[in-house]
Amino acid sequence: MTAPYRHQNCYEKQYPQHQSTVTIGTAAFGGAEIPIIAGPCSVESFEQLLETSEAIQNLGISCLRGGAFKPRSSPYSFQGLGEEGLKLLSAMRLQFGLGIVSEVMTPEQIPLAEAYVDCFQVGSRNMQNFELLKALGRHSKPVLLKRGLAATLDEFLMAAEYILSEGNPNVILCERGIRSFDPATRNVFDVVSIALLKQRTHLPVIADPSHATGRRDLIEPATLAAIAAGADGIILEAHPHPHKSVSDADQAISLSDLAALVPKMKAVANAVNRNVSLAVEGVLH
Amino acid sequence: MTAPYRHQNCYEKQYPQHQSTVTIGTAAFGGAEIPIIAGPCSVESFEQLLETSEAIQNLGISCLRGGAFKPRSSPYSFQGLGEEGLKLLSAMRLQFGLGIVSEVMTPEQIPLAEAYVDCFQVGSRNMQNFELLKALGRHSKPVLLKRGLAATLDEFLMAAEYILSEGNPNVILCERGIRSFDPATRNVFDVVSIALLKQRTHLPVIADPSHATGRRDLIEPATLAAIAAGADGIILEAHPHPHKSVSDADQAISLSDLAALVPKMKAVANAVNRNVSLAVEGVLH
Amino acid sequence: MTAPYRHQNCYEKQYPQHQSTVTIGTAAFGGAEIPIIAGPCSVESFEQLLETSEAIQNLGISCLRGGAFKPRSSPYSFQGLGEEGLKLLSAMRLQFGLGIVSEVMTPEQIPLAEAYVDCFQVGSRNMQNFELLKALGRHSKPVLLKRGLAATLDEFLMAAEYILSEGNPNVILCERGIRSFDPATRNVFDVVSIALLKQRTHLPVIADPSHATGRRDLIEPATLAAIAAGADGIILEAHPHPHKSVSDADQAISLSDLAALVPKMKAVANAVNRNVSLAVEGVLH
Amino acid sequence: MTAPYRHQNCYEKQYPQHQSTVTIGTAAFGGAEIPIIAGPCSVESFEQLLETSEAIQNLGISCLRGGAFKPRSSPYSFQGLGEEGLKLLSAMRLQFGLGIVSEVMTPEQIPLAEAYVDCFQVGSRNMQNFELLKALGRHSKPVLLKRGLAATLDEFLMAAEYILSEGNPNVILCERGIRSFDPATRNVFDVVSIALLKQRTHLPVIADPSHATGRRDLIEPATLAAIAAGADGIILEAHPHPHKSVSDADQAISLSDLAALVPKMKAVANAVNRNVSLAVEGVLH
Repeated sequence: MTAPYRHQNCYEKQYPQHQSTVTIGTAAFGGAEIPIIAGPCSVESFEQLLETSEAIQNLGISCLRGGAFKPRSSPYSFQGLGEEGLKLLSAMRLQFGLGIVSEVMTPEQIPLAEAYVDCFQVGSRNMQNFELLKALGRHSKPVLLKRGLAATLDEFLMAAEYILSEGNPNVILCERGIRSFDPATRNVFDVVSIALLKQRTHLPVIADPSHATGRRDLIEPATLAAIAAGADGIILEAHPHPHKSVSDADQAISLSDLAALVPKMKAVANAVNRNVSLAVEGVLH
Repeated sequence: MTAPYRHQNCYEKQYPQHQSTVTIGTAAFGGAEIPIIAGPCSVESFEQLLETSEAIQNLGISCLRGGAFKPRSSPYSFQGLGEEGLKLLSAMRLQFGLGIVSEVMTPEQIPLAEAYVDCFQVGSRNMQNFELLKALGRHSKPVLLKRGLAATLDEFLMAAEYILSEGNPNVILCERGIRSFDPATRNVFDVVSIALLKQRTHLPVIADPSHATGRRDLIEPATLAAIAAGADGIILEAHPHPHKSVSDADQAISLSDLAALVPKMKAVANAVNRNVSLAVEGVLH
Repeated sequence: MTAPYRHQNCYEKQYPQHQSTVTIGTAAFGGAEIPIIAGPCSVESFEQLLETSEAIQNLGISCLRGGAFKPRSSPYSFQGLGEEGLKLLSAMRLQFGLGIVSEVMTPEQIPLAEAYVDCFQVGSRNMQNFELLKALGRHSKPVLLKRGLAATLDEFLMAAEYILSEGNPNVILCERGIRSFDPATRNVFDVVSIALLKQRTHLPVIADPSHATGRRDLIEPATLAAIAAGADGIILEAHPHPHKSVSDADQAISLSDLAALVPKMKAVANAVNRNVSLAVEGVLH
Repeated sequence: MTAPYRHQNCYEKQYPQHQSTVTIGTAAFGGAEIPIIAGPCSVESFEQLLETSEAIQNLGISCLRGGAFKPRSSPYSFQGLGEEGLKLLSAMRLQFGLGIVSEVMTPEQIPLAEAYVDCFQVGSRNMQNFELLKALGRHSKPVLLKRGLAATLDEFLMAAEYILSEGNPNVILCERGIRSFDPATRNVFDVVSIALLKQRTHLPVIADPSHATGRRDLIEPATLAAIAAGADGIILEAHPHPHKSVSDADQAISLSDLAALVPKMKAVANAVNRNVSLAVEGVLH
């Protein structure tokens, strides 16, 4: 009934420079390159995804995000297109070669999503949904694990351990803001946690400035701060027509804002001796 | 794709005095009587449950709690006895007539637990595990829904709505402390939320002083405060040998401390024109 | 340059049952009796204080609160009547024999206020205004020290130590809510802190349900919970015409609501073997 | 008794590009240049300041910080050298031409400090010490106002308004971390608040990574993130022998770590089209 004695958790570094790389499609997280994942909060339509995918591919971004199963505070809010949404995402993979990231909320959705996505996302509300974590640990596709709204870093790392200890080494941690007292922003972006996590684990650590701030006018400073602090990747909500977004409309940036942000990300990445990973370098300027 | 227009959520009162009653075994929550649910954090053994059940029955307490499936921050911590634990709980129901409350963490555990328990508990970490909530909404047994660690009352009520809107009206809300900045206690017991929830919903609202404080020396004041603030019930971690508890050892009270607490609860309940619900009134002094 | 070696802080108990009593006017805080302090947030006029004082004296309440120097978030908000307000309070002392509690915000206000008040209040924003605390420590009148908005109990007790270590033993601690994430209430009332403080110090500990909740419809449950948890006194914002209050209008209760609350406080106090201290017992029913 | 009607608070921008500049010694905050303020938490000795001043002057840093009056949670902790400390700071101004920043805790300390310092600091605990703010508003030297531990941005800006509305336009805002639930760091560095404040006010906004993190191994990422997010300056605790620091020993960086950090700050500043302000450009590389 007692826990077995263990020298070390799976998430811990085995030597100071220990750093794992996790690959989604053609993008490697955890190395010198900093990949970007972009796309809408919710998959809404083929046209929406097509317009988004063309734009992000033109920017050299290699991963597309989009929610098909949506965890919403209210049961009466849009709950996502479900499998239909996954199929639309998968069509973008086929047409544009984008790596696909989409959320699963329950173990049953894993085999369903597996055919369509390159990376399972676990949302904040499910960070300690241990049955989901264990089920994902028994698959091999990467898991993008978001920090819970009020999760300590210890709890965050132990949530990753649930996946790792079942045998799936492909976990990417994602800081996405924590709950605090000031209603000025949706959450407080705990940028220093990125650096602290990277001290404590070999897993890649990325940032989600969209949820961390909840306001599109703050995405740029949060994104640049994340890169300066050492983030191994950035996930952004981008939408062809942000004001028409069916969910999280306040925090999605437009595709043109995204295009304007990428060179700034590149500049800050270079300043910290890294590089924003873009498939077609020549496109920018 | 838009939410249907609704006059009212299911959790809202339809008239000012609207108050629902939810029954676990012989205990009714939401009326003038204030039932107590007591028992260990984790089901550990037949002997442990037997000793606990005898003691609580002697006190007139009619509901037994005990975890068979345990959500733990670490995958290496004791994860509960599983179905074996449910069977032990069920044996206590048979022998002592106690109503049984036990946690389920995933939709698959519901049919398994259904035969053994009188009330499904949803833990804090799963307050927004919407698939679990919807699955419980399609059953009829009562659900004891604990507030998330950093959940607003709006989010808490909308989590209940996930269960109610699927057709199960038997939801009991449970305040169990929220995360805050002072390490002096495990959580901050938001006692006023009990009164505020009762203004906003017809659902019964109970308190869990054990998790709210995390310290057995603070169970008494937290319990009495909860009753004074209007709680419809109290759930307490009690263990025959608290220091030997395999989980949450710091917050469980002994069976003799529980016996000493009950008359104090009775006195405060009477002061606010309610009554602690005890099966055998004569036992107390 | 190093701190002198000390066995014990002044606030600590010297033996398990160590409990100090601090007296404001005729009211003793820290004994079996639970006194009430009531009155408006801000002193506004003679008529306002007169109506309040008559009402609270009729209820048997022996202490009047009222702000003459008001700490306000905005420099353009009403800043209090200053010395004129103190004179009005003092007139109530003369006419009704009430103990007077009023806030000072700076060391210079202490000698000015000293002639008019029976107890200096230190507000939350000044809990770590150490120069003010030290200056109050060199006087002998009681100090009602409110907990800071985000102060740990350690910090709260060490703030009291600043007063005690200068020689003034008459400190009353006041829990008044802490800042948290849910906008449903102004603050979260940390009711358990009352019990925890009483374990750690011999100083009296009272509660301020008005600031803790910020909503008059939650004053009753917060007050009763505080008494059940062991509070040594209650300070309440009461106003003859709450909706006309120049400050904190949402949280002041009317004098008739106050009259209705007192017998409920009495009932809960009796349930925990204490008594609400009222000068004219016969008035209540 | 009502507030006078006002179109606008003094802190608000009068036009979108409105940006004030505040000068400490030779350093201008609020323009394209990003000055650094460095020095020990507490002034301890002439030797300590001399060694620090030589080092920072060699790096091109133009402002020296050091506490002479120290607000400490415990009255038994080192409270600072007082006027003796101010004299030592002033000697560094004379010898090295450094701008001097030091904290005042009470209105009486202002005239005393005025002769020795170039900028008054107001600490977090005094952010709403309104008498202190008003007194500083009646002087003309710059005020470095630190955000309170749990202050909303509205409260922070209104605290600045207390100074501005009295006639002193020279206010620099400083984000220094807010209190949160994770003990992993002393505070949570709210990096996005820098960008949000800069949207809302024309005042310069700087960052204090030392207090924001409380750990020297996190100063670098926090500093670089602050610059990437748009900070107008950085204030750092640096000490010749950090481990011997009489206060805040865990968060001070060594002078050699400071030297290593400056070129990294320069690189990130350049990436966001700004420049770290250094008196002797040639020194670096």
